[in-house]
Amino acid sequence: MVWRGPETWEETALHSSGLISIDWGTSAFRAYLVGADGATIDQRRSALGILSVPAGGYEATLAEAIGVWRALDGALPILMSGMVGARQGWREAPYAPCPAGLTEIGAAIVAIDGGALGPIGLVPGVRRGDGDAEPDVMRGEETQILGAVAWSGRADETLVLPGTHSKWARVADGRIRSFSTYMTGEIFAALKGHTILGRLMNDGQGSGEGFAEGVRAATRLSAPGDLLHAVFMTRSLGLFDRLSASELSDYLSGLLIGAEVLAGSAGAPDGAIVVGSPGLTERYLKAGALLGLKLRAAPEDCVPRGHLALLDGWRARAL
Amino acid sequence: MVWRGPETWEETALHSSGLISIDWGTSAFRAYLVGADGATIDQRRSALGILSVPAGGYEATLAEAIGVWRALDGALPILMSGMVGARQGWREAPYAPCPAGLTEIGAAIVAIDGGALGPIGLVPGVRRGDGDAEPDVMRGEETQILGAVAWSGRADETLVLPGTHSKWARVADGRIRSFSTYMTGEIFAALKGHTILGRLMNDGQGSGEGFAEGVRAATRLSAPGDLLHAVFMTRSLGLFDRLSASELSDYLSGLLIGAEVLAGSAGAPDGAIVVGSPGLTERYLKAGALLGLKLRAAPEDCVPRGHLALLDGWRARAL
Repeated sequence: MVWRGPETWEETALHSSGLISIDWGTSAFRAYLVGADGATIDQRRSALGILSVPAGGYEATLAEAIGVWRALDGALPILMSGMVGARQGWREAPYAPCPAGLTEIGAAIVAIDGGALGPIGLVPGVRRGDGDAEPDVMRGEETQILGAVAWSGRADETLVLPGTHSKWARVADGRIRSFSTYMTGEIFAALKGHTILGRLMNDGQGSGEGFAEGVRAATRLSAPGDLLHAVFMTRSLGLFDRLSASELSDYLSGLLIGAEVLAGSAGAPDGAIVVGSPGLTERYLKAGALLGLKLRAAPEDCVPRGHLALLDGWRARAL
Repeated sequence: MVWRGPETWEETALHSSGLISIDWGTSAFRAYLVGADGATIDQRRSALGILSVPAGGYEATLAEAIGVWRALDGALPILMSGMVGARQGWREAPYAPCPAGLTEIGAAIVAIDGGALGPIGLVPGVRRGDGDAEPDVMRGEETQILGAVAWSGRADETLVLPGTHSKWARVADGRIRSFSTYMTGEIFAALKGHTILGRLMNDGQGSGEGFAEGVRAATRLSAPGDLLHAVFMTRSLGLFDRLSASELSDYLSGLLIGAEVLAGSAGAPDGAIVVGSPGLTERYLKAGALLGLKLRAAPEDCVPRGHLALLDGWRARAL
């Protein structure tokens, strides 16, 4: 099959108000077919993250996943975000520096020739600025943030994207002004899997009280180093039968998430938007409720929403 | 060989002002032959911690290690501390509750019949009190603390015993009033060995600047949860070439130790005594100097000093 449609992703953006939206991370692939009204018509998920794609195999992997959609509409725009744009991905899309909004990120989209799939736009990640004392990067989350902000309709927001490496981001005037990574998920896994804390844990169904206890324990910390002590309480409370074995994992989870939410939401009196998987989002909302903070869940389709906002922004500037 | 000396460890205490002092932990064994003047005459170390002792093999293992000393003086007192007194050790010595000093800990010493070695005194661990919101225990450290306090000559002290599980203890009127465990060493190992942070690290000889940078970073934290973000800087500073690969491990060490020292020493205007291995003690003293805190190193023989103080206390009460 030879491509006979528009030559650039910008042309495809003018062709159609629908979209094929791709979120291609390290260990997961997700694609959305989005109609002209912005609603998701169909979606695909797989474990074919970029670590699982054979050398030179990006185009074939993508064609396999979205070939049917492409056959339905030969010139729908395709936008991709995530680690697929990292140096070790399909093509590197250099990071846009903060502050970065629809204009800056849209201007830094990298064009890929998708062969029989036609032109593809590759959304760059975002990095904190050169003079910043705390360098940090994101790739994929910038699109979710743009989608969540488009959903909220407010140009000033605090957002958290929980996960292995949680990101807390500040958006001002519609642009990502700064963000910080919290290793909460990976630290939880390392403590549970590779320290003495995991030994007393029993992964039976907890009552939820362990999680609440952990969040409350987070509020009693004062010095930053207190966390090094507080995690050990997971063991002591188990040894002294103050918490049952089935509550200990949730206690550690609540302690770490509580500490993260308190730190990340500092200076955000209007609360924050949570952009994450349903399970993690529920934990963060529960922690927020216990802490008296206004956390609200973003819809699950923030990636296609972010891509649509980028296309809309591009059209608004082009027309 | 049949024992023909004193029948109890208390009688041996009256017999001699010397001592055979044993520190028997989970993974290490250490013994000191102490002369009448309190000086260490000889010592033995091995990796025969209680996890390596075969079932029923405590007496034989100890006889193998100190049999020569016992042959020199048939009735020197023998005192043991550490996990050898845990439920999974030779005999359980129930914890003495805080506040616990020479009198309380001395009164809770458990007598063991050492067969051909004669009577042995087993020093109990210490636990925080029943009504305490934060249950915690120590076993072995109580003897080091008593030894360090005997060395300092002051009845009110703050002490840190750095390690896999660091202990910070407050001594008031010569008694351990409270203490807290910080998982600093084990968290460092888990982060380095089982998270993304270890991947950029190169264990070449650092300049020491990485450690100092980490300690300084600890002073810039404000919320407890900031630590979940700060550890990630180990990766970001490496990725952005702000720290060389050989400094990253020391940076993480400095960050965690700095945070621990700031938290543990809060409310201790007179500083603290560091009781640990020479290598770790040097790191803590360096962190203290960078933080403007008065940390001072205890001598290495705090275990026999603690045992001597327990014997002296017992004699003072007995005579």
